Amino acid sequence: MLLTLDLLGIFVFAISGGLVAVRNQLDIVGVVVLAMSTGLGGGVIRDVVIGAVPPAAVENWPYFVVPVAAGLLTFWLHPAVGRFERVVNVFDAFGLGLFCVAGALKAHEYGLGPIPAAALGMVTGVGGGVIRDLFVGRIPVVFRAGELYAIPALAGAAVASTGFELGAHGPGIVVPAAGVAITWRLLALSRGWTAPVPRA
Amino acid sequence: MLLTLDLLGIFVFAISGGLVAVRNQLDIVGVVVLAMSTGLGGGVIRDVVIGAVPPAAVENWPYFVVPVAAGLLTFWLHPAVGRFERVVNVFDAFGLGLFCVAGALKAHEYGLGPIPAAALGMVTGVGGGVIRDLFVGRIPVVFRAGELYAIPALAGAAVASTGFELGAHGPGIVVPAAGVAITWRLLALSRGWTAPVPRA
Amino acid sequence: MLLTLDLLGIFVFAISGGLVAVRNQLDIVGVVVLAMSTGLGGGVIRDVVIGAVPPAAVENWPYFVVPVAAGLLTFWLHPAVGRFERVVNVFDAFGLGLFCVAGALKAHEYGLGPIPAAALGMVTGVGGGVIRDLFVGRIPVVFRAGELYAIPALAGAAVASTGFELGAHGPGIVVPAAGVAITWRLLALSRGWTAPVPRA
Repeated sequence: MLLTLDLLGIFVFAISGGLVAVRNQLDIVGVVVLAMSTGLGGGVIRDVVIGAVPPAAVENWPYFVVPVAAGLLTFWLHPAVGRFERVVNVFDAFGLGLFCVAGALKAHEYGLGPIPAAALGMVTGVGGGVIRDLFVGRIPVVFRAGELYAIPALAGAAVASTGFELGAHGPGIVVPAAGVAITWRLLALSRGWTAPVPRA
Repeated sequence: MLLTLDLLGIFVFAISGGLVAVRNQLDIVGVVVLAMSTGLGGGVIRDVVIGAVPPAAVENWPYFVVPVAAGLLTFWLHPAVGRFERVVNVFDAFGLGLFCVAGALKAHEYGLGPIPAAALGMVTGVGGGVIRDLFVGRIPVVFRAGELYAIPALAGAAVASTGFELGAHGPGIVVPAAGVAITWRLLALSRGWTAPVPRA
Repeated sequence: MLLTLDLLGIFVFAISGGLVAVRNQLDIVGVVVLAMSTGLGGGVIRDVVIGAVPPAAVENWPYFVVPVAAGLLTFWLHPAVGRFERVVNVFDAFGLGLFCVAGALKAHEYGLGPIPAAALGMVTGVGGGVIRDLFVGRIPVVFRAGELYAIPALAGAAVASTGFELGAHGPGIVVPAAGVAITWRLLALSRGWTAPVPRA
């Protein structure tokens, strides 16, 4: 169940990476590598930082096959995939919610305290997109004015981290924590909420 | 004492990251993430490379709180902070001196020889700034013509590494090694020294 | 023998990094750092991901000296070095072939399965060039249309990985696997083969 959700999250993240690659006129290598980096990058950074090496994404073949398939799909069918971008954005919110929670919990498992675990949960959620944007030479979307993306991820990770400290586990953590991140992100998308910017 | 100096170095590095973010019109997420990356990035790279995971910056909460505070301060007070940039540059030289020495010594502790330890000391000093610049899509300042930054850091790290090999320890290493890096960097700042460039 | 080949691969990769730095008007720090990153980056990424830390490139001094020497050589003699770029491209194909095979075999040694080992072999071959390009703010050549570089590396790594699974070892793996990668890459260079691009 959790594995399926995780792979679904990787799939939609990878689609977003593949679309960015197509729009930057990369070749098939660029499309597949951006799909993989976007789908797996956040988890790999987290695993390297907490010492969980080789990373889960490297050791288990479904974690390889899913983003490669998403990349090839985007490569061949990008006009159709691009038309569903709004749907992709909704799934992406679910991916973000799952990743930030799974990231925070894995950091706890490896002995980190609640503050770094929440921060690494956020990194798990947004790290793949940061790598995707660096690879095409643009400032990562998550840092730029005009989106609200990392803060919902941090909130979800913080709820997961707090739940873990209070002794909750399983769905008792995942449902409320991912729920906070996903709801907040979807509201931000539909209402155009953005993060604060510095005064001019 | 050393912890205080270390946190002061992180603080001024984080301020420089926050200022770069503000000037690139990033939102609050971008400002805080650039502050953290600039303050902690060099040490995290070093720790991941030598196998000291989770990195010190992830496990100890003051290492989290200080750059976040520097980021938020820059976010709210950036016109004032920007006016003190010359002061920030001076403190930055002290941060560079401390980081390159602490980085070289930690690499020695983990069993590295003197040449890689000195190189990792330099990486500790300049790594955060490299990440900061990559995040806003510019060629890292430390690689560009017109500054003398990495060479003083490498010199300080080399002095620390040599001192360690000769059996010195504590202030007997830190004072001369950081002194070399800081003095050289401050002289470069005030006299406009630069590193050599290739012939045209 | 293998060490010599490995160092030769690092040397030519480092030359290519140094030339990119010179053409982007970096100073001596930028030239040497790009030479080191291009020569050693792929191997360091692989080693960090599989948990082989400190990376081989950090622990053994010839791995340091060779790319530094290549960087300084390029710094001083870049007009001459640039004139030999076609020769450098041929040697680069050999470096690519050796790196992808050595990377796949090392990943196997650390217990990875054949698919991730082949992928990490490719990463070992192309990772240094990706870092080089990120450092000068351009989309990595290996992702862009117009080259065929990563696919020969992946093919060579896959042959090595298959050979390892079938119980071959030593030259029985290295010769056919590197041969596939090198031959394919050289043919791509001389005949202008490129990887497929998405439909417009």
